Amino acid sequence: MANITKKVSWSSRPDESGAIGEGTPLLNGSEQQRHGRQLISMYVFISYLAKYALPDSDDVCLLFFFNCNYFKFQSLDYDNIENQLFLEEERRMSHMSFRCLEISRWVVCGLIGFLTGLIACFIDIVVEQLAGIKYQVVKENIEKFTEVGGLSISLLLWAALNSAIVMLGAIIVAFFEPIAAGSGIPQIKCYLNGVKIPRVVRLKTLVVKVCGVICSVVGGLAVGKEGPMIHSGAVVAAGVSQGRSTSLKRDFKIFEYFRRDTEKRDFVSAGAAAGVSAAFGAPVGGVLFSLEEGASFWNQMLTWRIFFASMISTFTLNFFLSIYHNNPGDLSNPGLINFGRFQTDSEAYYLYEIPLFIAMGAIGKFKNFFFFLHTKSYLRGLLGALFNILNYWLTIFRIRYVHRPCLQVMEAMLVAAVTATVSFTMIYFSNDCQPLSPDNTEEYPLQLFCADGEYNAMATAFFNTPERSVRSLFHNQPGSYNPLTLGLFTLTYFFLACWTYGLAVSAGVFIPSLLIGAAWGRLFGILLAIWAVPGKYALIGAAAQLGGIVRMTLSLTVIVVEATGNVTYGLPIMLVLMTAKIVGDYFVEGLYDIHIKLQSVPFLHWEAPATSHWLTAREVMSSPVTCLNRIEKVGTIVDTLSNTSTNHNGFPVVVQPARLCGLILRSQLIVLLKHKVFVELARSRLTHRKLQLKDFRDAYPRFPPIQSIHVSQDERECMMDLTEFMNPTPYTVPQETSLPRVFKLFRALGLRHLVVVDDENNVIGLVTRKDLARYHMGKHGLEELQLAQT
Amino acid sequence: MANITKKVSWSSRPDESGAIGEGTPLLNGSEQQRHGRQLISMYVFISYLAKYALPDSDDVCLLFFFNCNYFKFQSLDYDNIENQLFLEEERRMSHMSFRCLEISRWVVCGLIGFLTGLIACFIDIVVEQLAGIKYQVVKENIEKFTEVGGLSISLLLWAALNSAIVMLGAIIVAFFEPIAAGSGIPQIKCYLNGVKIPRVVRLKTLVVKVCGVICSVVGGLAVGKEGPMIHSGAVVAAGVSQGRSTSLKRDFKIFEYFRRDTEKRDFVSAGAAAGVSAAFGAPVGGVLFSLEEGASFWNQMLTWRIFFASMISTFTLNFFLSIYHNNPGDLSNPGLINFGRFQTDSEAYYLYEIPLFIAMGAIGKFKNFFFFLHTKSYLRGLLGALFNILNYWLTIFRIRYVHRPCLQVMEAMLVAAVTATVSFTMIYFSNDCQPLSPDNTEEYPLQLFCADGEYNAMATAFFNTPERSVRSLFHNQPGSYNPLTLGLFTLTYFFLACWTYGLAVSAGVFIPSLLIGAAWGRLFGILLAIWAVPGKYALIGAAAQLGGIVRMTLSLTVIVVEATGNVTYGLPIMLVLMTAKIVGDYFVEGLYDIHIKLQSVPFLHWEAPATSHWLTAREVMSSPVTCLNRIEKVGTIVDTLSNTSTNHNGFPVVVQPARLCGLILRSQLIVLLKHKVFVELARSRLTHRKLQLKDFRDAYPRFPPIQSIHVSQDERECMMDLTEFMNPTPYTVPQETSLPRVFKLFRALGLRHLVVVDDENNVIGLVTRKDLARYHMGKHGLEELQLAQT
Repeated sequence: MANITKKVSWSSRPDESGAIGEGTPLLNGSEQQRHGRQLISMYVFISYLAKYALPDSDDVCLLFFFNCNYFKFQSLDYDNIENQLFLEEERRMSHMSFRCLEISRWVVCGLIGFLTGLIACFIDIVVEQLAGIKYQVVKENIEKFTEVGGLSISLLLWAALNSAIVMLGAIIVAFFEPIAAGSGIPQIKCYLNGVKIPRVVRLKTLVVKVCGVICSVVGGLAVGKEGPMIHSGAVVAAGVSQGRSTSLKRDFKIFEYFRRDTEKRDFVSAGAAAGVSAAFGAPVGGVLFSLEEGASFWNQMLTWRIFFASMISTFTLNFFLSIYHNNPGDLSNPGLINFGRFQTDSEAYYLYEIPLFIAMGAIGKFKNFFFFLHTKSYLRGLLGALFNILNYWLTIFRIRYVHRPCLQVMEAMLVAAVTATVSFTMIYFSNDCQPLSPDNTEEYPLQLFCADGEYNAMATAFFNTPERSVRSLFHNQPGSYNPLTLGLFTLTYFFLACWTYGLAVSAGVFIPSLLIGAAWGRLFGILLAIWAVPGKYALIGAAAQLGGIVRMTLSLTVIVVEATGNVTYGLPIMLVLMTAKIVGDYFVEGLYDIHIKLQSVPFLHWEAPATSHWLTAREVMSSPVTCLNRIEKVGTIVDTLSNTSTNHNGFPVVVQPARLCGLILRSQLIVLLKHKVFVELARSRLTHRKLQLKDFRDAYPRFPPIQSIHVSQDERECMMDLTEFMNPTPYTVPQETSLPRVFKLFRALGLRHLVVVDDENNVIGLVTRKDLARYHMGKHGLEELQLAQT
Repeated sequence: MANITKKVSWSSRPDESGAIGEGTPLLNGSEQQRHGRQLISMYVFISYLAKYALPDSDDVCLLFFFNCNYFKFQSLDYDNIENQLFLEEERRMSHMSFRCLEISRWVVCGLIGFLTGLIACFIDIVVEQLAGIKYQVVKENIEKFTEVGGLSISLLLWAALNSAIVMLGAIIVAFFEPIAAGSGIPQIKCYLNGVKIPRVVRLKTLVVKVCGVICSVVGGLAVGKEGPMIHSGAVVAAGVSQGRSTSLKRDFKIFEYFRRDTEKRDFVSAGAAAGVSAAFGAPVGGVLFSLEEGASFWNQMLTWRIFFASMISTFTLNFFLSIYHNNPGDLSNPGLINFGRFQTDSEAYYLYEIPLFIAMGAIGKFKNFFFFLHTKSYLRGLLGALFNILNYWLTIFRIRYVHRPCLQVMEAMLVAAVTATVSFTMIYFSNDCQPLSPDNTEEYPLQLFCADGEYNAMATAFFNTPERSVRSLFHNQPGSYNPLTLGLFTLTYFFLACWTYGLAVSAGVFIPSLLIGAAWGRLFGILLAIWAVPGKYALIGAAAQLGGIVRMTLSLTVIVVEATGNVTYGLPIMLVLMTAKIVGDYFVEGLYDIHIKLQSVPFLHWEAPATSHWLTAREVMSSPVTCLNRIEKVGTIVDTLSNTSTNHNGFPVVVQPARLCGLILRSQLIVLLKHKVFVELARSRLTHRKLQLKDFRDAYPRFPPIQSIHVSQDERECMMDLTEFMNPTPYTVPQETSLPRVFKLFRALGLRHLVVVDDENNVIGLVTRKDLARYHMGKHGLEELQLAQT
């Protein structure tokens, strides 16, 4: 072993760095996970606390506090390990085998699309059925008690129903798979970026996610079922493409070629796209989403496969829903949410409306801006300040009292009950009665105290799944809502969504955003003038709100346009989203980016910070670095791997003194140790089976920890020849290379380790994702996260 | 100078390799260009000849014949030259300067969009006006002579008018700027890929292109004005982003930072996207086009800027057209071609129609397949065979007799006259009379021998600009055309388009493809059944035909959907395009790829051929390679640059014996020589101005040839210190690196030179674009273009 040792570069103090996420036995997976999740929540809240209550506290301390703990992210290997085994296999393969591989890639993508579509279909039908039953029961109950009095019983029934359903959803999430909470989009973004979030693409996560989202939506929370589809699609892709399920212990012996990070990532992109496609009926939007959020290297064939998966996904959903709706062959339901058909005349909007739209984009942003609490001052706006203070108290409360799963479940139930109560109260006191016209599409019109033949307009918004409410806001006749109803609805739903955000339930933020946006957009349209078509403004408002929150431009434009089914509004939607993006980025990053940052994920952005040219590889790299000799003693390898203070995953292989000749990964070494590929053994037992690529593939992706591998004292004295297994041509950079150049190489090729060499090709350091991710552009120029230095 | 010499790796025998394209004085630019273009034409035709008439001849000979001649492509530097000067500048720049740069990038993109939109608007209005006058004159003439007899005078008038207009267009193209012929899309694809096509983004090219396309369309050729918009957008981008015009000798001293290939490419992507956006009213499609055809490294900020340019472009066009149409503020004309609004019911198509659509996709492909003559057998289909034979004779004829510009002009005139004659004949003998209903939108209805209140349906298709014809085919009432009319029209237009293809006029192939497709699609719809809406089938047919020809999937889907203004047909269009792509790729590449290949452009595809893992950098690289010492004698440098047998553009800089310490470009050396940056001079004249980055930027992109720089005998003995100017950290690979790995690095980072080093960092070879492009996947596995070895 070369006498160089590597410094830990991210997130670990020597005394605590033993816990290295998935693959280490220090805590069992599930417990560790729960711990991690709680710590994330805690961290998020402490961070808020620090920002708003304790102005002198330092973010760095908090990051440090958080990062010293169990959560540690590993990277994925998006660069092929081109060792001798791999090259031999590739060389043995004929032209025809590559054709077959290519075809099987298409088949896998087709399967991904199909299964994702089926899941979406399943969620949609179950939600519709269960929500239908729930609304029917409550409606009948309300109607029964409206005349005779005693509506409080109806309220109780409604609240109890909601709470019970949400409880179910929260229990499975909080107790069984905490990673399934939320929409899963930030996790998938990280995965595609190259960060391994533990358990994120497992079957169990999928099951919990699907059941969880059904419960949340049926339970009447201010959530949507669209975001989780993206996560579901990704899990399906990760599962199908591997041809086996580790959880179910079934190996179908197919698609073994795809058992590596590079191929898996490509399929996960396709899965995420298929998810978007199923959620919004937007196959092109799905492809763009995958590319905008995930891919760095744009490959035409890959794009077409992703497109294919998206197409199949929306088609499957459409087809099965058409059967379900007893209208087989009518392909007009391409997504979970359908914005309905906008009646467009040839002049759908006027030039003078465009400034209005742009203004709405700015508003949508500001709302979100306040909504997500990243203002540092209370003065930025009344609404924002109010919201901040409320959420601040709520946050304190959650940190103090809601850190155990059972409490999380109870909080979720409470939110469900309150949501029902607030909705009921709003409906009860509303006197916005609208005539029940024959072409009315209301599913559950509540008459309440309205005259016969009329219904309560407030109920349209509240007493409905959020998807239907969005559609009503877009399409109901001008005059269906009076401004007061809309204003009250926006306000209450805003608060409810805010409270719901952060619960331990599986749910998306797309639909609440759309709903809030649609409500204030429609209000804006009504208040503005008489000539405006309010539905149009509702659409623009929804786009603005959503764009302000998730901050995607191109893909979101296409998604909204595809969901609308009409290109006419393409230009205003683009303008609005662009405005929302520009205005928004001035203040704070998008929701997903905020969360990724808060979780201290070493996420690599598109480019290195602009002012980082003065940094070179020498300053950025981790050094000294642990190197292995080409023929190395087993004992040294075991010690290196067991050394918890050097828990890294790639080791340059050198010939004396330090001349680089290859790179080998922890996972490879572990497989080698497990199969006892020692020089001495190979000599003594000539029949010893040669290690094949298959052995590595079988161990992928859950490589055992070093502690589980027993190496006897005798074996420690053996030698291991790494020549065949190491990657003999790792990418290298000279030590004078500037950070942007290193970054570009690293990012474009999806590397995990980049060896820094001197003029004579001697190893002097190693650049990993964490070395690069710690530089970011702050308010005062380039900033470096200090925790990396601990 | 290190005693290593580099072998020429592409396209040149020692005795002829002196001619190295733009930047060499052996031929003046224009003449050389013309030569090159003729040679391309010749080569294309000889290639056909070889394939169809001389079955024993070898493609390789032809490639050799062609490539030994004057045409030589240089590469662009899409990797920043991070030398000391550059790094110093970057380090001096504050955070705010980078912000300003970023803002100016947005401003440039906005300008690109605006100007591209204006150009599109100009073309559209001029074409509409001139074509209107032409059709009005001819129509009046025809009406005058219909009753009294003597329609042959009308025919003469029509043919003469067309010929005269086309003559004008052909003259400017053939005599002034031959690179402006055709649509320019293959050239832009090459540019974005990193190949420098001489003169492709010059102002003169733009002017010729715009005038040429107006003449071609007004002249009634079977061409469209959409393809050239993409080229125009790219030229605008290349011009605006540089803040100066070399042709006009004006330097505005702005945007100097953008004067390098990397930045320019980004803007050219935006320009191409803006062009697509203006042509089809498809901003998202434009972005996708740029990315699908050009970009390899997907950068989010860049994508948004491209999107912004596209948006501005379509908006500008829309706005000015709305003023032109006296309806300011009505933004319903987003593109040059507008497919019109499809009347969609909620059930726009049925499930059982999908197989039909897919079949149409396959047909579209086959037609194209025959259309573009890449069948090797006469048996693949009657139509194909007929077409092949015809075009074969035509080709022979062209090679023998049409190789001078004046002859090319005459041929273009002939085609124009024949087009008019054929159209006239078709209209004359057609007896498909349709009632002239009040809501009829025909612009120039010809009554001819129809009863009063009726018009000739054949004239709708022929007596119109192709854009209008497409729209009529999409939208006219079922029954507007009888099947015979459509069949005849398809057939004749097919032949006319075929003949037109390859003329020396500036014109696009999108619209003729759409028109042929729409015609047979409508025919298919009519013949198939009574229940079908023919317009729908016309749309699908058009998509299929276009998809079969240009073979873009994702971007074309979005373009067609955006041009249709309706997402309903998204799924069938996707399916059709996907089918056209899959079926098509089985036989032959897309039109643009064919042309790129025929021109022997060293075009890098997305990935290395699948079965190329057995090749390593050692086998691929050019070796030995000319290296320079870090402090080198001026005489050696001059000799190296003047040596026509080693006409390469990058030289590794080494310290003795051959240890790599940097990379320097020919263009940089030339600037250094021009400014006499010699060690001795710097010592003697202390006041000598230090060379700055600005000097390199001022010389960009037309660096003078070495022959124009005078170096005296004394100066030859001086020394030059390259340390400050060379890129000290070029990307390197070890010699054992596999070809796919080399390829990935090269392609992902847009490199021009990749240094191959041994274990001790000694230079042993250089990989350039041409070394990589020569491997491709043939019918029998991996093939290497032999010419590279000459």
